Amino acid sequence: MKIIIDTYGADGGVEVLINGAIKALKKKDFIPVFAGQKIKIEKLIDGRIKNYQIIEATEFIANTDDPVRAIRRKKDSSLVKSFRALKDETYDGMISAGSTGAILAGGLFISGRLEGIDRACLATSLPSKEGSTLLMDTGANMDCKPEFLQEFAIMGKVFSETVLGIENPSVSLLNVGTEEGKGNKLSKKAFTLLADSDINFVGNLEARDLFTGKTNIIIADGFDGNIALKTAEGVISLLKDEINSAIYKSLKTKIGGGLLKSALKENLSKYSADEVGGVPLLGIKDYVYKAHGNSNAYAFSNAILGLIDYIEKDTISKIEGELKCLEKN
Amino acid sequence: MKIIIDTYGADGGVEVLINGAIKALKKKDFIPVFAGQKIKIEKLIDGRIKNYQIIEATEFIANTDDPVRAIRRKKDSSLVKSFRALKDETYDGMISAGSTGAILAGGLFISGRLEGIDRACLATSLPSKEGSTLLMDTGANMDCKPEFLQEFAIMGKVFSETVLGIENPSVSLLNVGTEEGKGNKLSKKAFTLLADSDINFVGNLEARDLFTGKTNIIIADGFDGNIALKTAEGVISLLKDEINSAIYKSLKTKIGGGLLKSALKENLSKYSADEVGGVPLLGIKDYVYKAHGNSNAYAFSNAILGLIDYIEKDTISKIEGELKCLEKN
Repeated sequence: MKIIIDTYGADGGVEVLINGAIKALKKKDFIPVFAGQKIKIEKLIDGRIKNYQIIEATEFIANTDDPVRAIRRKKDSSLVKSFRALKDETYDGMISAGSTGAILAGGLFISGRLEGIDRACLATSLPSKEGSTLLMDTGANMDCKPEFLQEFAIMGKVFSETVLGIENPSVSLLNVGTEEGKGNKLSKKAFTLLADSDINFVGNLEARDLFTGKTNIIIADGFDGNIALKTAEGVISLLKDEINSAIYKSLKTKIGGGLLKSALKENLSKYSADEVGGVPLLGIKDYVYKAHGNSNAYAFSNAILGLIDYIEKDTISKIEGELKCLEKN
Repeated sequence: MKIIIDTYGADGGVEVLINGAIKALKKKDFIPVFAGQKIKIEKLIDGRIKNYQIIEATEFIANTDDPVRAIRRKKDSSLVKSFRALKDETYDGMISAGSTGAILAGGLFISGRLEGIDRACLATSLPSKEGSTLLMDTGANMDCKPEFLQEFAIMGKVFSETVLGIENPSVSLLNVGTEEGKGNKLSKKAFTLLADSDINFVGNLEARDLFTGKTNIIIADGFDGNIALKTAEGVISLLKDEINSAIYKSLKTKIGGGLLKSALKENLSKYSADEVGGVPLLGIKDYVYKAHGNSNAYAFSNAILGLIDYIEKDTISKIEGELKCLEKN
C-alpha cells in the first residue's frame, strides 16, 4: 500500500512527519510517498526507511493562502501534487497536516465529490467514557444547509459501521437543548430531515454530552462542530495544566502526585488528541486524511494508521453503495 | 433592596432556591420576594427568614412550554407575575432558574428592550487562569444578525467596565481561526462591524482560548456561545469524574489523592459553574438574572449576590448612556 504524505503544514516541520511515518512503519507495512523537497526529505530520513518514494514539490500552500485559489494556481505545491498523484491508481491514500481549507478544496476540485454528495466533511473521533463518538462536521463547511447535515449522517453511519464496527449506530444532532423544536433555523430543519432519514436518529444532544458516549454519531454544522471540538481541546489542556500545577505546589503534593500519576495518566490519556491524530475527509472519491497541524510524531503515526484502516475497509465504495441504495428508494 | 425570586424552574425544587436566598442573606442585606405557592414557600422557609414577601402564583411555565405563548397566556405564572411586579419601582431585580426562552420572552415583552437594542443577550462570566472572561450571547438568540453581535459587544463593554471594573476591555469574536476572513457568513460580517465599532476589538479568537484569559469579552451567536459553554461544562465534569476515579483506584492512589486533594480543589474549584451561578439578561429595561436550572443552594446564593452587584452598580443606566452616546455619533 502506498500512502502519500504531504510534508508541508506541520507546526513541528517535516521532521515530525517523517518520524511519524517511521513510527507507523513499525506497526504496519506500507510504502510512504513523501511529497515535498527531495533533498530535505532524504536528509531527514537518513537511511531510516528502506522503501520509500518522493514526489518532488517546490511550492507550498500556507494557512494564510486563499484555499480555492491556492489549489487552482499553486500547481507545484506539495498538496496539489499529492492530490494529482492520488488520481493515479498506484497510490492508495493521502495525508496532510496542512491547511484544512486547502485540503477540502483539493478534495472537491481534484479528487471530486461522490455522486449524491453536496459537501465533503471532516469526521472526528471523540473519546468517550467507553469507546468513541464520531463528531461531524468539525470544520470543513462553514455555512451548511440542512441537507448537508443529512448527508453527513449517512456518511457517518457507513463509516461507523465499516471502520468502527458499530452496528446500526445511533445518530444525534448537536443542539442547545434536547427537546424537538430547540435550536436555530438550521438545527430545526435538520432535525426534521434526520428524523425522516433511514438512519437510527435519536434526537438532539446537548454539548455537555459530547464525551459521555450517549450516542455513536453527532451531527453538526462545520462551524459549530469546530467550536465544540476546540473548546474541548482547550478545556482538557487547561485542566491538565491545573493538575500539574497542583502537583508541583509543595513537597506533600509532589509525593501525592507521584502516587497518583500512573492512575491519572491511565484515565486521562484517552482524552489526548494524539490518540487519533487525524480525521478522514468524507464525501470525496479518494482516501484523504487531515492530520492536526500541531501533530507530534506519535499523533501523526496514529493518523497514518487510521488512514490505512479506512482504506483497507474499503469505506468509500461502501459509502457509494449506501448512496446508490438511497437514490433507488 | 427587594429581589424577586421566581421559585419555579430549579431541578432541585423550591427548597434549593430558598436555601440559596438564606445563604445570600448571610452575606448581603436584602428583602427576598418569593414568587410561587405561598403555603409551600412559607413551610419551607420555616421561620428562617425574618423579612420576606411573597407574590402568590398558582401557575408555572415549564421548559417544554412555547416561551412566547406562555409569557402571553400564563398570566398567573410565577414568571409572568415576577416580570409584572418588576415594572413596579418598589422591586429592584428578579432572578429565575426557569426556562431561558421564557425569561427572554418576558424580558422582551414585559420589561421591554432598551432603546437602540434589537436583542437582549445572556452574558456568562467564564473563569480563566487569571480573572474572568465574559462570553455573550450564551443562549438567548439562536439566529443572529451581525448587528446583534455588535450590540452584544457594546453592552459587554459597559458591563465589564461597570460591574467587573475592567478599563477599556478587549473584545474578541469567537471563530474557527484567528485570521481575518475565517469563519461563516455571520462571523465574517460581524468581524467587519466590530472592527469599525468604537470598542477595543482585538480580532478572532479560537474556542481553545475560551479560558486562557487572552481577552476580556468574547462575542458569539447565542447558538455557538451555548455550544461552547456546555461543551466546557461537560468536559470539566468529565475530567473531574476521571480524577476521582483515578483517586479511588487503589490504596496507593487514595493516599496520593489525600495528599493532593486540597491543592487540586484550590486549582479546579474556580472552574465550577457554581461560583458564578447565574447570568444577567442584558439589553432589557429591568435587572433580570438567569440562574442555572441545576443550581444548588450555593450556586443560587452566588447568583443572587451577582444580581445585587449588577443592580448596585447602576449598570442599565450606564448601558443606556453608552447607547445614547453612540446614537449622537
